[in-house]
Amino acid sequence: MASAGSSLGAGEAERPHPRPFLIGVSGGTASGKSTVCEKIMELLGQNEVDHHQRKLIILSQDRFYKVLTAEQKAKALKGQYNFDHPDVVLFEGILVFYNQDIRDMFHLRLFVDTDSDVRLSRRVLRDMKRGRDLEQILTQYTTFVKPAFEEFCLPTKKYADVIIPRGVDNMVAINLIVQHIQDILNGDICKWQRGAMNGHGRTYKRSFPEQAEGSTMLTASKRSHLESSSRPH
Amino acid sequence: MASAGSSLGAGEAERPHPRPFLIGVSGGTASGKSTVCEKIMELLGQNEVDHHQRKLIILSQDRFYKVLTAEQKAKALKGQYNFDHPDVVLFEGILVFYNQDIRDMFHLRLFVDTDSDVRLSRRVLRDMKRGRDLEQILTQYTTFVKPAFEEFCLPTKKYADVIIPRGVDNMVAINLIVQHIQDILNGDICKWQRGAMNGHGRTYKRSFPEQAEGSTMLTASKRSHLESSSRPH
Amino acid sequence: MASAGSSLGAGEAERPHPRPFLIGVSGGTASGKSTVCEKIMELLGQNEVDHHQRKLIILSQDRFYKVLTAEQKAKALKGQYNFDHPDVVLFEGILVFYNQDIRDMFHLRLFVDTDSDVRLSRRVLRDMKRGRDLEQILTQYTTFVKPAFEEFCLPTKKYADVIIPRGVDNMVAINLIVQHIQDILNGDICKWQRGAMNGHGRTYKRSFPEQAEGSTMLTASKRSHLESSSRPH
Amino acid sequence: MASAGSSLGAGEAERPHPRPFLIGVSGGTASGKSTVCEKIMELLGQNEVDHHQRKLIILSQDRFYKVLTAEQKAKALKGQYNFDHPDVVLFEGILVFYNQDIRDMFHLRLFVDTDSDVRLSRRVLRDMKRGRDLEQILTQYTTFVKPAFEEFCLPTKKYADVIIPRGVDNMVAINLIVQHIQDILNGDICKWQRGAMNGHGRTYKRSFPEQAEGSTMLTASKRSHLESSSRPH
Repeated sequence: MASAGSSLGAGEAERPHPRPFLIGVSGGTASGKSTVCEKIMELLGQNEVDHHQRKLIILSQDRFYKVLTAEQKAKALKGQYNFDHPDVVLFEGILVFYNQDIRDMFHLRLFVDTDSDVRLSRRVLRDMKRGRDLEQILTQYTTFVKPAFEEFCLPTKKYADVIIPRGVDNMVAINLIVQHIQDILNGDICKWQRGAMNGHGRTYKRSFPEQAEGSTMLTASKRSHLESSSRPH
Repeated sequence: MASAGSSLGAGEAERPHPRPFLIGVSGGTASGKSTVCEKIMELLGQNEVDHHQRKLIILSQDRFYKVLTAEQKAKALKGQYNFDHPDVVLFEGILVFYNQDIRDMFHLRLFVDTDSDVRLSRRVLRDMKRGRDLEQILTQYTTFVKPAFEEFCLPTKKYADVIIPRGVDNMVAINLIVQHIQDILNGDICKWQRGAMNGHGRTYKRSFPEQAEGSTMLTASKRSHLESSSRPH
Repeated sequence: MASAGSSLGAGEAERPHPRPFLIGVSGGTASGKSTVCEKIMELLGQNEVDHHQRKLIILSQDRFYKVLTAEQKAKALKGQYNFDHPDVVLFEGILVFYNQDIRDMFHLRLFVDTDSDVRLSRRVLRDMKRGRDLEQILTQYTTFVKPAFEEFCLPTKKYADVIIPRGVDNMVAINLIVQHIQDILNGDICKWQRGAMNGHGRTYKRSFPEQAEGSTMLTASKRSHLESSSRPH
Repeated sequence: MASAGSSLGAGEAERPHPRPFLIGVSGGTASGKSTVCEKIMELLGQNEVDHHQRKLIILSQDRFYKVLTAEQKAKALKGQYNFDHPDVVLFEGILVFYNQDIRDMFHLRLFVDTDSDVRLSRRVLRDMKRGRDLEQILTQYTTFVKPAFEEFCLPTKKYADVIIPRGVDNMVAINLIVQHIQDILNGDICKWQRGAMNGHGRTYKRSFPEQAEGSTMLTASKRSHLESSSRPH
């Protein structure tokens, strides 16, 4: 957050497009990561908007690494990708909190926490519909998917800011995120960040973010302390 | 949410004070429940406001059951307590999600999830400052506090909408909740609910809540199904 | 253990058949409870022995409640069932630790601890082979089996003396139990219990059980303290 | 187990001292690792035996690495240390399952599983008695001990053969281990291993180990498969 804030400050003179608000969404296979993201898109009415007009985009880690070129990836991660301002990016994937550099870029980190048997149940149904063989699905899950989750994803849960239990069934949590994004798109959060930076906030509304900024600074410093002392496990 | 919405609709003709937005905050001893609530109060600048003007109040389950009369309790829980409109109530306590009737009243349920050893560490420091004896503190914790938490509080975690790891150190989650309450106090969430009720929402902003209302209905029905089939364990 | 010991002492004059050594084996569906029991039976060569000569029997909670008459159940649970002495009974089931009276009867409580997704994977494969429909299997699991496990079985894990991770794949733990049963069948554990009762043990081997008896007394008293203060949750 | 068995077979011609039976005992700080080991020592009457006559020794990872010379460590780990035959070694420490080479040497791996708040409570009491300051104890625990446990010890729990809940209060589990060690010291387990090797076992007792050996082979191969595919996390 602190680095986001300072790069925002530094960047304002240099580039017209400030960094988008980056939300990382992690969780195990079939936890509901992408369904949650799509539900947020839908609730904000952004799925009906022309692609070029969208103020919210979803990047899937899988598609991201496959479709974009290396240059595009770098651009996207640095917030210089070609989309309108302000913007909000939902970046979802099993490993989005694994790499510290990427992890540090998120303004908000969500972890969709769904029991492993529920996730397996969903995955089996999904893969069966794709015409795959049951034993093969279960073998792949047991041999590769489960160990990889426990080795690389689960240990990153501790970096989450907010844990969303049950995934897409949890509309109260989703509505909370939707409302937050709505505020960002309306400019409330942006005003807040700028207000905090130049210190001109005076109204009740603006006075709160200044306090929050201080707290955020504190958090960011605590967080980097925590993270530097331990790698994912 | 659905019942809150419909009672709001029904209530509007009968009583001038609609139900406040009720947020339940649970978690184990020394998880940071009340500190999180006080931080929210502070970030919203409500701690500097005269007591009678406050739009956000914190009810602690302990104080609640001890200080209020039975009649006051009943009134407060039914949202007819003497505070201004609109309002937001943070109701925090170890057992606030235990009783189903109370649990169902919350529009948002937060669970502050802090490791048991971190909680014990905080509790020891706090109780030592109150002049208590170390062995006594640890004996009480092991004999009463820990078994009660595992028996009555931990099983209610599954009813949480949002899990906040680490408590008051987690400023990103706290800011998210603060922003949400700010929206409610600003009337955005109320407008949204009413907009959803009378179905006149047409602008971009209003169009989203209608969809959300439908989803919320679905959620509410799912939730009651889930909860009726299992008691806390 | 202490009560078992004393009832054994009291019973010796009255009845020729001392109580069998009772081992409770719990764990979730498809955790490997019955497979572990069958592996123990096989490793002890008891599956090749004529039914009436067996010194080890497996009682499944399901079959138990279905096949035996009420009188047989009562007899079996009181250790007066018609089998040779000494004997060892493996009593396995999802709920064998739920009822306190039954729970207290076990000399050894094992909990087979297998991840929920691994268990679901096994259950799906098993039920598919029985010709059932995949969606029906998953619906039944999600709607009934999983909530019942979390409500009634998982909270009894805390009563286990030994937790066996991974189930039947864990041959080191199974061999440990097999060796223990072998000792009981050889009379070593019975000698030990009697030696402890009459206090005549003097050799190295006998001197250890006396100490153990004291410790066991302590354990039994601690256990009843623990259990009386909390019901399963 | 299989490799232990074969090296035993190969080693018998070359060296008079076969490998001792190695039991690894892991668990978090103040989980009760060393108390469990000492209780086992006491129950076997080995604490009253002259140091040179002991058939059971406890090696603490801390003391081990501090007291012994590098050569002694190497010898001890290779089972060529100067102690009588047969022998049993309890090797206890927070990290004894971390290194794969050391982990693979254990014939039995125990994990003493005690809740983190119970462990902290014990540690605080212990360290206070050593005259240390409460805040310092808690700071050290939070800053170093807890993160190190979660990073390096907890992920090795999956390698345990048997999980012992509650530590030294769990006398049923301790007696199970004590009985097993007693069998080893009596030569039952050694006979069993040799019987399995030369295949001459014919009595009831001997027939079981042969089957066990086959099963153990299977286990060992499964284990190495599992472990090679994942490092501790």
